[in-house]
Amino acid sequence: MIRSIRRHSPAAAGVGVGIGDDCAVLLPTDGRRLLATTDLLLEDIHFRRRYAEPADIGWKSMAVNLSDVAAMGGRPRWALVALACPAETTLEQVEAFYEGARDLCGRHDVAIVGGDTTASPAGWLVNVTLLGEAATPLLRSGARVDDVIAVTGPLGRSAAGLALLERASAPARMAAAELAALTSAHLRPVPRVAEGRWLGEAGGVTAMIDLSDGLGTDLAHVGDESGVRCRVELERLPIDDATRHLARALDADARAWATGGGEDYELLLTCEASTFARLADGLRSATGTSLHAIGAVVRGEPGVTFVDASGREVPTAAGFEHFVTGGRHA
Amino acid sequence: MIRSIRRHSPAAAGVGVGIGDDCAVLLPTDGRRLLATTDLLLEDIHFRRRYAEPADIGWKSMAVNLSDVAAMGGRPRWALVALACPAETTLEQVEAFYEGARDLCGRHDVAIVGGDTTASPAGWLVNVTLLGEAATPLLRSGARVDDVIAVTGPLGRSAAGLALLERASAPARMAAAELAALTSAHLRPVPRVAEGRWLGEAGGVTAMIDLSDGLGTDLAHVGDESGVRCRVELERLPIDDATRHLARALDADARAWATGGGEDYELLLTCEASTFARLADGLRSATGTSLHAIGAVVRGEPGVTFVDASGREVPTAAGFEHFVTGGRHA
Repeated sequence: MIRSIRRHSPAAAGVGVGIGDDCAVLLPTDGRRLLATTDLLLEDIHFRRRYAEPADIGWKSMAVNLSDVAAMGGRPRWALVALACPAETTLEQVEAFYEGARDLCGRHDVAIVGGDTTASPAGWLVNVTLLGEAATPLLRSGARVDDVIAVTGPLGRSAAGLALLERASAPARMAAAELAALTSAHLRPVPRVAEGRWLGEAGGVTAMIDLSDGLGTDLAHVGDESGVRCRVELERLPIDDATRHLARALDADARAWATGGGEDYELLLTCEASTFARLADGLRSATGTSLHAIGAVVRGEPGVTFVDASGREVPTAAGFEHFVTGGRHA
Repeated sequence: MIRSIRRHSPAAAGVGVGIGDDCAVLLPTDGRRLLATTDLLLEDIHFRRRYAEPADIGWKSMAVNLSDVAAMGGRPRWALVALACPAETTLEQVEAFYEGARDLCGRHDVAIVGGDTTASPAGWLVNVTLLGEAATPLLRSGARVDDVIAVTGPLGRSAAGLALLERASAPARMAAAELAALTSAHLRPVPRVAEGRWLGEAGGVTAMIDLSDGLGTDLAHVGDESGVRCRVELERLPIDDATRHLARALDADARAWATGGGEDYELLLTCEASTFARLADGLRSATGTSLHAIGAVVRGEPGVTFVDASGREVPTAAGFEHFVTGGRHA
């Protein structure tokens, strides 16, 4: 199996020695900061094998890490992949897992340079560590009063997709394309890698984070680290038609998915109000992605406030904490 | 919990941003190679909670990665620790785990700069990724015909300790100190970090690897990667008294533990015969650790041959494959 993984790992820029020694030997770029992030994904905590194919697990375990490097404005470069699966797992399933991971790596010039495989006594589990580089990483701690708060795309899609996947059957009267778009948003999130790099180099972004745990939770991190209060106007949250249609069909709350659902892997940033138009125009022409202003940084206790159209504060659900509780710290 | 981990992670050299953002931000040394390794440890595959305390698990999950960086002749610098434990785990147990990991990190100036914590549906599991640096990493692939093969310490201790821990009761008539030394060798292996760094800088080492899967398996990697045959004289294997005493008490084969047991985390190296004395003397005066010559690199099919005192080839057990099968690839 290791031979198979190794065969599929061609020589890559910045790699002295890839898979096959005690450590990978990498050639960092002089003068750059090194970025490092790690994420553990467990069966029945972060995904269910009932609907997540091995290739989906491979893709997503890489996507969540790519999103973290994107959130620093960095360039992802090298990945280490540790996989454990039950004894009955076939070689084809393991290869499909790596194929899913490699598919996404290939789109971003990321080399898989090492890892670990082992038998698991209970279910699939994956740990990916991703290394990247940045000249000046964007932190969570730079948001200032009067900054605009913006996101790179629609929210709540992943939570909608999860609600769909957890059901025994899809609701009637919804277009197949919309159903597929939502399940794909959950199973194969597309990390905003090009957007993150562009925003990292554009200048003017004061803080950035990726939306993994949900808008409420992740924005609270920006508020806490920056010592500011973040005020979000619920009316301005970008929620796409498929998400709205599913919420209507299931009698669910699309806005709760958008504020608390998590796993959208859009970037959330703050910038001075005067630079917003330049960033939005530049990002759209460089990547095709729109920037949506959803609120502003205000004075007050560090944290997050959601307000309705009349400006009245609205309580919202807490952030997504996976199927069971957990917490990431880098 | 994350706050607790963060509080115990003081500012460290080479760390721009530690725990608390999307990625850790690290400051690599210009001109050095970056080393990266990752290891997954699972309950009931790599350790049993019946005898491994949380602090032991923390220690060992760091030790096995430190050993990989040592095997490249590198300096370990930054660690990312991902931990999943069952819902019933107490905060004290989690803190003890990190205390065990930090204890070993502190001895080698390694900073824990990030990680992930999550609930586990089944047992403890840990993934540590360790990053290090080296000017010229030592690979597995440089062994040449007529090189000496040497190890940094006694073999078979960890397997002996495991045999002891797996038993219902300790054998009679063995000194408590010997029993403790063996169980400690298994639960709290001491990676040869200073030895690896010294050997990496000394010049003259042609190949190096750490003994994690067992002498037979690990030396075969050197043989395969270098395209040479490695010939080990069983009579010369360093096996300490405690290991011999236990083997006698259990009617077990100390030599099988030494060749196939694994998890000793000694370094195994090859060097030109003419440089062996210089390396052995230098290593002893720099670190107090002795180098034991156990064989030589010979012509032939890549692989390993074990011979007895009369020079006759002896078949040996395959390498240790944990409680169930698995394989590492960096």
